[in-house]
Amino acid sequence: MSSDHASEIAETTPSKQCLRLWLRMLRATRSIEGDIRELLRREFDTTLPRFDVMAALYRKPEGMMLSELSRELMVSNGNVTGIVDRLEDDGYIFRGTRNGDRRTSHISLTGNGSETFEMWAKAHEVWITRRLRDLDEAQTADAIEIMKHIGQSAEGVKR
Amino acid sequence: MSSDHASEIAETTPSKQCLRLWLRMLRATRSIEGDIRELLRREFDTTLPRFDVMAALYRKPEGMMLSELSRELMVSNGNVTGIVDRLEDDGYIFRGTRNGDRRTSHISLTGNGSETFEMWAKAHEVWITRRLRDLDEAQTADAIEIMKHIGQSAEGVKR
Repeated sequence: MSSDHASEIAETTPSKQCLRLWLRMLRATRSIEGDIRELLRREFDTTLPRFDVMAALYRKPEGMMLSELSRELMVSNGNVTGIVDRLEDDGYIFRGTRNGDRRTSHISLTGNGSETFEMWAKAHEVWITRRLRDLDEAQTADAIEIMKHIGQSAEGVKR
Repeated sequence: MSSDHASEIAETTPSKQCLRLWLRMLRATRSIEGDIRELLRREFDTTLPRFDVMAALYRKPEGMMLSELSRELMVSNGNVTGIVDRLEDDGYIFRGTRNGDRRTSHISLTGNGSETFEMWAKAHEVWITRRLRDLDEAQTADAIEIMKHIGQSAEGVKR
């Protein structure tokens, strides 16, 4: 395998630059995520996985299957089930079970869940803006295009 | 709090653009991380947290304290301890304990650990290059600067 690797590196021009970009992306993303985790905890006594679940459901007012939610969040059904259970206990999520199997549940936000998420989302937007507002508009637009391109260039590694 | 939020949003120009950039960054980063996790598993039967621990130690040939490693990786000591234990069992890490307390261990890569990591790192560079090589050099350079800027603009939310 190592000879394959060597020839692939030779073909593409700036592999060290690619690596540098990746490490910078990772650092920037983790740093913002760290802030968001801390602010969610402090301001709303909640977590990023809970925020992500509520965000996904907010985008689908008609609700969705638990399996669909897992796929969208790219986490295992097991993890999502635990988070959904607790959000249901808190009155944020309504769950309709089919055949008594909780994994095949259809879930959606309750009115309270929807209002709560709107409050979280407003604050989240302020926090993100605070972190990114130093960029001028052209830089922001460039960065959006580049990140879009990177996100779409997935070769689709088989899972 | 909500009136504060509203005035802050009004001050900064493109808060929806900031949010758009953040979501694109997150998607791009998660997509690459997903590929790397899968490739590490498939090619080397290892995990991203193990890779990250080995990478941090590889950069410090003199080794470091476990607490220093935790800080660098921004994870709890407990998590790192488990990963380090397993890497030690595999013969990749050498650990010198002080006063029998494993949490105050001084750790470094063994020769075998160092060689193994070099192999992983070469493959990792190829994978990252594959994902990012569609960008031209100017785009890559721009993106590096923007990500650097974002990573440094942390307000330092108190933990």
